[in-house]
Amino acid sequence: IASNHDFSIYNLPFGMFLRDNVPSPGIAIGDYIVDLRVAYDKGVLEGTGLIPSVLSRPTLNDFIAQGKKVTSAVRNRIQDQLVDTDSLLRKHKDAILVDRLTAQMCLPVEVGDYTDFYSSIEHATNVGIMFRGKENALMPNWKHLPVGYHGRSSSIVVSGTDIKRPKGQMKPADADAPVFGPTKRLDIELEMAFIIGKSTQLGDSVSINTAEDYIFGMTLFNDWSARDIQGWEYVPLGPFLGKNFGSTMSPWIVTMEALEPFRTEGPKQDPKPLPYLQNDRKGNYDIRLEVSLQPENGTDTIICRSNFKYMYWSMIQQLAHHTVNGCNIRVGDVMASGTISGPDKGSYGSLLEITWGGKEKITLSDGQTRTFLEDGDTIHLRGFSESGEKRVGFGLCSGKILPADE
Amino acid sequence: IASNHDFSIYNLPFGMFLRDNVPSPGIAIGDYIVDLRVAYDKGVLEGTGLIPSVLSRPTLNDFIAQGKKVTSAVRNRIQDQLVDTDSLLRKHKDAILVDRLTAQMCLPVEVGDYTDFYSSIEHATNVGIMFRGKENALMPNWKHLPVGYHGRSSSIVVSGTDIKRPKGQMKPADADAPVFGPTKRLDIELEMAFIIGKSTQLGDSVSINTAEDYIFGMTLFNDWSARDIQGWEYVPLGPFLGKNFGSTMSPWIVTMEALEPFRTEGPKQDPKPLPYLQNDRKGNYDIRLEVSLQPENGTDTIICRSNFKYMYWSMIQQLAHHTVNGCNIRVGDVMASGTISGPDKGSYGSLLEITWGGKEKITLSDGQTRTFLEDGDTIHLRGFSESGEKRVGFGLCSGKILPADE
Repeated sequence: IASNHDFSIYNLPFGMFLRDNVPSPGIAIGDYIVDLRVAYDKGVLEGTGLIPSVLSRPTLNDFIAQGKKVTSAVRNRIQDQLVDTDSLLRKHKDAILVDRLTAQMCLPVEVGDYTDFYSSIEHATNVGIMFRGKENALMPNWKHLPVGYHGRSSSIVVSGTDIKRPKGQMKPADADAPVFGPTKRLDIELEMAFIIGKSTQLGDSVSINTAEDYIFGMTLFNDWSARDIQGWEYVPLGPFLGKNFGSTMSPWIVTMEALEPFRTEGPKQDPKPLPYLQNDRKGNYDIRLEVSLQPENGTDTIICRSNFKYMYWSMIQQLAHHTVNGCNIRVGDVMASGTISGPDKGSYGSLLEITWGGKEKITLSDGQTRTFLEDGDTIHLRGFSESGEKRVGFGLCSGKILPADE
Repeated sequence: IASNHDFSIYNLPFGMFLRDNVPSPGIAIGDYIVDLRVAYDKGVLEGTGLIPSVLSRPTLNDFIAQGKKVTSAVRNRIQDQLVDTDSLLRKHKDAILVDRLTAQMCLPVEVGDYTDFYSSIEHATNVGIMFRGKENALMPNWKHLPVGYHGRSSSIVVSGTDIKRPKGQMKPADADAPVFGPTKRLDIELEMAFIIGKSTQLGDSVSINTAEDYIFGMTLFNDWSARDIQGWEYVPLGPFLGKNFGSTMSPWIVTMEALEPFRTEGPKQDPKPLPYLQNDRKGNYDIRLEVSLQPENGTDTIICRSNFKYMYWSMIQQLAHHTVNGCNIRVGDVMASGTISGPDKGSYGSLLEITWGGKEKITLSDGQTRTFLEDGDTIHLRGFSESGEKRVGFGLCSGKILPADE
C-alpha cells in the first residue's frame, strides 16, 4: 500500500461494513478492510485487552467505550502485523482481508446526540454580512464562546445514502404569506465531525486540559441545508426543518493518533477567551478539504478547497464549553464543526457563500451552471492530511439529491 | 382504588421501575404497580400478542414498538383482571403487585431525539414582550408553523433526580465582557411531552390525518432553564447550554386511550394554517396543570395553575410539521410542548413570566420570596384530567436544585 494513499499504513481508521449482511467492525488499509472479528478469531489481537463481544455489535460504540488503551493497542497490533511479512495476519490474509472497494459501509456509531458548532470565523462573517450587513456580521457572543446548537441524530446517514429534496414552508421576499413546496435553495455545508470516545455523568464537566482524552476520532460531515426553509423558521430558536432532513457522515473514523503529526496552531483569538477555554497546546489540525459537485451522468467539478486549520474555535474548546454546565456526553456522540470556510472565495464551504446568496452562478466543467443543488446532483467531500510521504485521508463523504415526492 | 385517584382504573399508565435492581415494566394502579413480567409469567397476558422478550429490556421502547394493538390489549387485559375478583391477576396478586410508593422509578424510554416546541401563544407573547416589546412580541413565522428546535437527549432524567445548578458564560447588562459563574437566573418550564410510538423511514412524512397513530402517550416535563446563560448564547442558533444541563420527565406514560375522554377544541387559529397543518378533529386535551415550589425543609407553595388545552398548536400539528421535510422519527422520541402558559398571571408556566423577568418577587407560604430558584428548592409539576368521577393523572414530576460545584 502506497504511503500516499488515503488509507495508508499511517492511518488505519475504524469503520463498520457488511460481511454476509452482518455489520462487522474493520480497519481500512489501502483498498482492503481488515475484518477485526476474523482477526480476533485467528489470534491476531491476543494481548490487546480487547473484550471480543464488542466485535459483535452493530456499531463501534462498545468497542470505542473500551478506551484508547485498548483501541490504540488494536490499531498498533494491526499496523505491526500488516508490516511484518511473517505475521499471523499475513498468514490468514485471505480470511481476514476484505475488498474495501465493493464493501457496503454502515454508519460507524450509534449517535446519541449530535451537536453542530459554528466555529469558522470566515463562514460566520460571510453569513452575517449577507443577513445583517457588514457592521453587524458577527454576533456579540461569537468571539467569546463557540456558538453551537443541537441537531437531529435520527437523520445522520452514512456516505452513499441518497437525500430526498425536502419540502417545507418558506416565505418568498415579495409574498405576504408563506408557501409550501420543495426547497429551491438546497445547499451543502462542508464540515468535519469528532466522535466522543468516553462518557461523562450528568453534572460533570470536561476541562480543556483533559478534553483530548474524550475525542476518539474524526470524520467528514455534510450538513445539508434548505436555505429557504431555514430562513423562515429559524427565529428565535434556531434551525430545525431546514437541517434535520439529513446529514451525511463518512464511514471511516480517523483516530486522533493518526492525525497527531498534523497538529497545528489555530488563529489567534482576540479577545482572549475566558479561562475555561484557554489552553496552550496546538489545538488545530492541518486537514485539506475539498468539495466537488457531479451532475447526473456528468463529470465532477471541484467547487471548494478549504482546510480544517482555519477553525477559530478548536475541538477541545468546543468540548470544554459544551460540558461546562454539566451537560453529559456519551460515547458515539457527534460534534460537528460548522461550515469550514477559508479566507478566499475558492475556499467557501457552502453554496450560500460560493454564490453569495444565489446571486453569482458557478459554472461546472461541462458548462452547466448552479446556484443551489439540482435533482440528480451528487456532492462529494474529500479530506486528507499530508506531510512528506505520509498521508492520512478520510475517503469519501457523498450523497445524491433525489427529487421531492410528488 | 378510588376513581378520583391519579392512577385510577381509567388510567393505567406504563412505566419502568426497579425490582431487585432490575428495570422492569409496569402499569400503575393506585398505590401499586402491576409487574408486567410477573403478570406474563402467571399467564395474565395470554392472547394479547405480546412478545415476552420485550419485557426484559431496560426501557419500554421495544414494548411500545409492538404497536398500539398489542399495548392496548395488554392495558385492557390488566384493566379487566383488576376489576374481576376471580382473575388470575387477583389470584397471584402477592407476586404481581408491587408497592408503588416505595418503588424506584427509571426513565421509561431511551430517548433517541428530543424536540422542544414553543407552542403556547401566551408564553411566546410574554417572552416576546419582555425581549422585544409589545409591537414585535410574536415573530412573523409564529402563527404559520409550530416553532421548535432540537434539545439534548442525554440529559433527560426521571422525576426525583437532583439537578445541579449549572455554570456558564453570561453577560450582565452593564458589563463590557461576559463573566463566568453559576447561573443567577435558574428557572423552570412547565411543559408536557408526547412519546413517539411508531417509527418512520428517512424521507417519509406523517400526515396530520394519521399523526395520532404515532403518538403513544404523554408525560409531564420540566425544561429547566438558565436564563442568563441562554440570553447571552442564543443568537443566532438558539438555546444550548442554557437548557441542556437537565430536563425532568415524569415516570409514568399516560396513554392516549386514557386521555381520549378529555379531548377538546384548541384555540381558533387565525390565519388558517397551510393545508398540511389542517385537521378537523379536536386536537387538544383538557389537562389541568400545577407547579409548586418547596424550599429546603419548607412547605410547598403552588406558583402556577395552567392547562394543556391552552396550546395554540396541537400535537398532531407539531408532528405533521416535524416530519413534512422527511425527518424520520423513532419509537421513544420525546416531543415537548414548550412552556404552557395560560391567559392570566396565575397561569404562567415559568418564573421568567411569573416574576416578569425577575422584577416582581413572589412570596411563598412561609414568607420567603423568590424571583428565580435558590439552592435546595424543589419543583413539583402535577397534572390530571377529570370528568365527573373519572380521573386520569400524571403523578409527580419533581427535581431539587443542588448548589453549583465550588
